[in-house]
Amino acid sequence: MGMTMTQKILAAHAGLDSVVSGQLIMAKLDMVLGNDITSPVAINEFEKAGFDAVFDKTKISLVMDHFVPNKDIKAAQQARQSRMFADKYDILNFYDVGEMGIEHALLPEKGLVAAGDCVIGADSHTCTYGALGAFSTGVGSTDMAAGMATGQCWFKVPAAIRFNLTGALQGHASGKDVILHIIGRIGVDGALYKSMEFGGPGLASLSIDDRLCMANMAIEAGAKNGIFEVDDVTRAYMDGRAQHAYTVYAPDADAPYEQVIDVDLSAIQPTVAFPHLPENTKTIDEAAALNVKIDQVVIGSCTNGRLSDMAAAAAILKGRKVARRVRAIIIPATQHVYKECIRLGYMDTFIDAGCVVSTPTCGPCLGGYMGVLAEGERCVATTNRNFVGRMGHTASEVYLASPAVAAASAIAGHIASPETV
Amino acid sequence: MGMTMTQKILAAHAGLDSVVSGQLIMAKLDMVLGNDITSPVAINEFEKAGFDAVFDKTKISLVMDHFVPNKDIKAAQQARQSRMFADKYDILNFYDVGEMGIEHALLPEKGLVAAGDCVIGADSHTCTYGALGAFSTGVGSTDMAAGMATGQCWFKVPAAIRFNLTGALQGHASGKDVILHIIGRIGVDGALYKSMEFGGPGLASLSIDDRLCMANMAIEAGAKNGIFEVDDVTRAYMDGRAQHAYTVYAPDADAPYEQVIDVDLSAIQPTVAFPHLPENTKTIDEAAALNVKIDQVVIGSCTNGRLSDMAAAAAILKGRKVARRVRAIIIPATQHVYKECIRLGYMDTFIDAGCVVSTPTCGPCLGGYMGVLAEGERCVATTNRNFVGRMGHTASEVYLASPAVAAASAIAGHIASPETV
Repeated sequence: MGMTMTQKILAAHAGLDSVVSGQLIMAKLDMVLGNDITSPVAINEFEKAGFDAVFDKTKISLVMDHFVPNKDIKAAQQARQSRMFADKYDILNFYDVGEMGIEHALLPEKGLVAAGDCVIGADSHTCTYGALGAFSTGVGSTDMAAGMATGQCWFKVPAAIRFNLTGALQGHASGKDVILHIIGRIGVDGALYKSMEFGGPGLASLSIDDRLCMANMAIEAGAKNGIFEVDDVTRAYMDGRAQHAYTVYAPDADAPYEQVIDVDLSAIQPTVAFPHLPENTKTIDEAAALNVKIDQVVIGSCTNGRLSDMAAAAAILKGRKVARRVRAIIIPATQHVYKECIRLGYMDTFIDAGCVVSTPTCGPCLGGYMGVLAEGERCVATTNRNFVGRMGHTASEVYLASPAVAAASAIAGHIASPETV
Repeated sequence: MGMTMTQKILAAHAGLDSVVSGQLIMAKLDMVLGNDITSPVAINEFEKAGFDAVFDKTKISLVMDHFVPNKDIKAAQQARQSRMFADKYDILNFYDVGEMGIEHALLPEKGLVAAGDCVIGADSHTCTYGALGAFSTGVGSTDMAAGMATGQCWFKVPAAIRFNLTGALQGHASGKDVILHIIGRIGVDGALYKSMEFGGPGLASLSIDDRLCMANMAIEAGAKNGIFEVDDVTRAYMDGRAQHAYTVYAPDADAPYEQVIDVDLSAIQPTVAFPHLPENTKTIDEAAALNVKIDQVVIGSCTNGRLSDMAAAAAILKGRKVARRVRAIIIPATQHVYKECIRLGYMDTFIDAGCVVSTPTCGPCLGGYMGVLAEGERCVATTNRNFVGRMGHTASEVYLASPAVAAASAIAGHIASPETV
């Protein structure tokens, strides 16, 4: 029997000719990732286990992004512990204030992950790198600790759902709208412990940023990972960027997909996920008709903080003003994106419109800082989760949307279509 | 007997021909200021006292700057309470995310304070506006509440020290170095409840930003207020900017100064205040000789976050790199300064050097967020206080300096003179 993309990558990294879903394997890792919240926990476990060396100092990335620049003393202590560990073991990919970025934007941008890789990260959105044709998944800090020491991790080989993409996105529709649409269709447990494997004739029309956004939110459907077939778009992104050779794994013609779901990209509307689950989706027309007044907009995060996201927001905001009493917070995901926003004039557009622009951070996405919500407040966010209290007070609400919808809503003061502002 | 500048302003605002030090008076207020921390306390007092109107909606400024964009749920609730109060009483000068700035940079920039004004603010660095020839002082939130309702505040008329400035600043010396030098000379209680009145032939060589920085730190010598004689530099700054007519009060020839201190500006060296008091000053040569390794640099705050401060930092950082493991955090004090930093290329300089740039906030100055220190960490900061635990852990250290010294230290990795990098 054939294998899915994920299964092929796992088999190769386990030294096996083939694997089947449900099989327990031990796989070699190409990258082990942690952030400023999870790394300290992993470091404690690493030390408790008596490890005194890392498996490969080039294959560990520690990215200070959640609460950095330090939001409080605890955050400062956590970053300090990570920094000292990085220095002790000479970990090359340690990213701190100065060369900052949100981990899942930074690693692809720096070429630290590429097609065919097997990657774990102590952060649930590590599934992002599937956009490049890698197997990549979130793990706990204990697995991260063992991964840093041994270069291996155990996995139960996932079953898979194939998403067969046709057509091409129209108007303001983006990768964010596709993945919200899909989660709305299959639910937040619709792909539980499965691979979401994306391919088909529609693939070519999706930019890398669209794919990174979609793979990023695979976890929001409960998936073990999301992964895209590698095509010319992927190669164009990786070539000259990837810091190591990459391998392309295509799914076999008889790959054992449990289900094949057709997604017509040309039919995707801008989509909003209402509180308090990403599956509570409405099309923008349905959402806008409800006249949902908002207090804040956040454009950024590992989901939608890349340059094309900034461009989409700037296109809507140019020459316009954010509505009175709406706080519009824009957070480029990396220093590179931040600098490009300056060069391309987006920064001026944002500030002239009445937005503030933050240094790269996860910040408000998880209620960390840089835009936490008060009681009763509503936010349209380009982030990935709208659970109760995710961005602050338990009586606040988060509406997930694309940068275009978020920008349009900032101008309107309520959830609005980019077509109408 | 004659009067000092401060006494003349207080007499005029109390409707008296003259006042003497120690006299209790009730004075009319031209501006009542609060921030996101102090305003909620004042609002609670305002409501507890049963007030149901503000004295003048144009003469109250509420500036969300300390923990905004909201750093946590408590901060979010405080900003929300301030916002609701501003809406209820139609307070025109309510500054929030979008038109942000640090209060003491924003009010002069917007022309909301001017020469001859009598200003109170529920923030200790309200003394900043003395740079423009205003009487301006920090009060508690209860006085702010009464001020918002009645437009008046009681004062005990302060005695005064005259600082007679001669010469002109040389090399990298700045207003920050002058005020640190003065505090080093007279101590943190050297001007306790007194006016620090600045004038003399050296005045003309000091920019408005130098003066704002110096007046800002009058409180660090214990002063009730700091105030500068109004000259052509002041008029040039206020004309076309001040939103109301201003009045110039010169000190009488026989003004009862308790002391006259001569300060030769040409002899001022770049100066650093060592932990844990602003009076623990050393010249940069003395400081640099101690090879004090640092972990962080903060360039910003109500003391040194203005455009000339950014320019001074950019001049040093241009084409250079921040030292490994030093986090350099730059915080333009207002959106206007932020935007000018983009236009003038300072942003590119900062980012290329390895700094991060934050949206305007007080943030790290008071250990709020955006750069809190861990145990044992040292920071060179252009802020105003280096008390134990001011910027984070009680076992961290803050060294106060000018933007030029802070930038030079960021490059060197230890406290360094701008002359040597």
